[in-house]
Amino acid sequence: MKKIYLLLFTAFLLIMFCCGREKSSTTSQQTQKPDWVIVIHGGAGNINPEDFTPEKEKQYRDKLAEALEKGAAILENGGSGLDAVVASINVLEDCPLFNAGKGAVFNADGINELDASIMDGKNLNAGAVAGVTTIKNPINAARLVMEKSGHVMLIKDGAEKFARENGLEMVDPSWFFSQNRWDALQEAKKREQQKLEDNTKKGGTVGCVALDKQGNLAAGTSTGGMTNKKYGRVGDSPIIGAGTYANNESCAVSATGHGEFFIRNVVAYDISARMLYHNEKVEQAATDIINNKLKLQGGNGGVIALDKNGNIAMPFNTTGMFRGFYKSGGKPEIAIFR
Amino acid sequence: MKKIYLLLFTAFLLIMFCCGREKSSTTSQQTQKPDWVIVIHGGAGNINPEDFTPEKEKQYRDKLAEALEKGAAILENGGSGLDAVVASINVLEDCPLFNAGKGAVFNADGINELDASIMDGKNLNAGAVAGVTTIKNPINAARLVMEKSGHVMLIKDGAEKFARENGLEMVDPSWFFSQNRWDALQEAKKREQQKLEDNTKKGGTVGCVALDKQGNLAAGTSTGGMTNKKYGRVGDSPIIGAGTYANNESCAVSATGHGEFFIRNVVAYDISARMLYHNEKVEQAATDIINNKLKLQGGNGGVIALDKNGNIAMPFNTTGMFRGFYKSGGKPEIAIFR
Repeated sequence: MKKIYLLLFTAFLLIMFCCGREKSSTTSQQTQKPDWVIVIHGGAGNINPEDFTPEKEKQYRDKLAEALEKGAAILENGGSGLDAVVASINVLEDCPLFNAGKGAVFNADGINELDASIMDGKNLNAGAVAGVTTIKNPINAARLVMEKSGHVMLIKDGAEKFARENGLEMVDPSWFFSQNRWDALQEAKKREQQKLEDNTKKGGTVGCVALDKQGNLAAGTSTGGMTNKKYGRVGDSPIIGAGTYANNESCAVSATGHGEFFIRNVVAYDISARMLYHNEKVEQAATDIINNKLKLQGGNGGVIALDKNGNIAMPFNTTGMFRGFYKSGGKPEIAIFR
Repeated sequence: MKKIYLLLFTAFLLIMFCCGREKSSTTSQQTQKPDWVIVIHGGAGNINPEDFTPEKEKQYRDKLAEALEKGAAILENGGSGLDAVVASINVLEDCPLFNAGKGAVFNADGINELDASIMDGKNLNAGAVAGVTTIKNPINAARLVMEKSGHVMLIKDGAEKFARENGLEMVDPSWFFSQNRWDALQEAKKREQQKLEDNTKKGGTVGCVALDKQGNLAAGTSTGGMTNKKYGRVGDSPIIGAGTYANNESCAVSATGHGEFFIRNVVAYDISARMLYHNEKVEQAATDIINNKLKLQGGNGGVIALDKNGNIAMPFNTTGMFRGFYKSGGKPEIAIFR
């Protein structure tokens, strides 16, 4: 008899718990699902207001707005999230302000070695390239790998051969030269010789996630990696599940930061897993992983994440992250600092 | 009033469900946790009894037993799971029967291009190499990357330079030559010219997971990839979260099969995520992913998975998988076919 009372009481608690959860989750959701959403980042890191003149800040803001608007126009016209992701990332890759494409940092041998990946949330198709030096827009190569190679990841000269054979725009490695990144390499080498820590070399990277009118999610990431990187080091950007992930059932994610931590913690997929298996909201999952799990390990960085209902999260545990979003019916929103 | 009855009925169903779950999960658990456990695989694929003479089957069984015993001796003496994983994989890498190290398949250019990764469940440290051609034991290079590079993934000649500088055993690429793999490449090229499908080229790979006396889990994977692979293709074996994952809180996993599917589904980490976020048992999570999720997509392969209590799972959706396990107080158990 006592056992039955206990069971009924447990049942009562369970019902109360379920009702409470339902209520709180409803209130945290937005009221109306937007037709389309696009979110971008241009890297998280040691980014502080005192290092920016008004002109410099405006340069960054304008370029981020341009990238958002480029993708938004595609989405507004009924284009695919994948097309929007590639177009937005191309704007950032072609701009020397960001550590991707033109503007990529130099490795220890004085070469710009680029990584990128993309994922289609509709069918879980994915593509990635790593360690390429002659492909003008690595995100386009990642998409080409996804759509035409039958594979997910191609690396180094093999990836370049594939890109060339498929008509992608190739450039001389010198195309990626920029004076400030070259100076940063010299500074990094000097600090290395003096055995000083160099925190400036981590971070960078650009990324984009989008939800299109058809309800499809897509994610992409492109990077030059770390200044002064050695031995063919590859970070999280070309790793599906770490730097990039998209699944129509859950969310689309692009990461930026100290890549090794993002690989070990399988960050992009972890956000999706928590949503699918643990009923977490995108904001809750992304924020907890970046601000608690990674921060405890000393893993600097951030993510942009977007769920199938158009809810977004842009957490970072650094002082700043170049970021922005644009939802149908709204306007481009840009932020850099905390 | 009607609503209350409905709620109570729902509560009753919930309780029955929970009790049932508890019971069935308890019965599937083993009664006593073993001191140590080691599990290996030598690849999943189109492996059928009719293709094996008794002599050939004995060769495979003997080598798998040797690999298990090598790792088991380390674990029995109180050595680390990482040491056991590396030692067991070395046995399989050095044997021409398996598609890893000596015995690796050839890429389209007639080169043996090797990938490997390793992960330490105690601290989530990880290391990987991809596309290397002169490192005798790629799993040792992966461990070196984990322990001495400050990075997780190094690729191609950069990874080789790092291995050489750190005193790893290097070999001429010709060391990896084996006649049967060379013949397989010629056959694959012929089928390619005739536009015939070649299902034999998928799969292969060796892997090991271990639980040591200290309660630490470790996982490692090593492969030659796909016969006739092109353009620097990299599969899941060197991708942390896809082909390899270990976490003391959940499980250690090594995968084998059609790597692209394992990357897109972040298979190794997905098993851990389901255990941590969805309270699934290792057997339940691994089996569902391999036999339902991947099979539905046409993704051939299997995994070995080991939880922190020594429970193991070795599901595969192909006709066979070279596999074996050894638990303290027991003896080596080997299987090849279904």
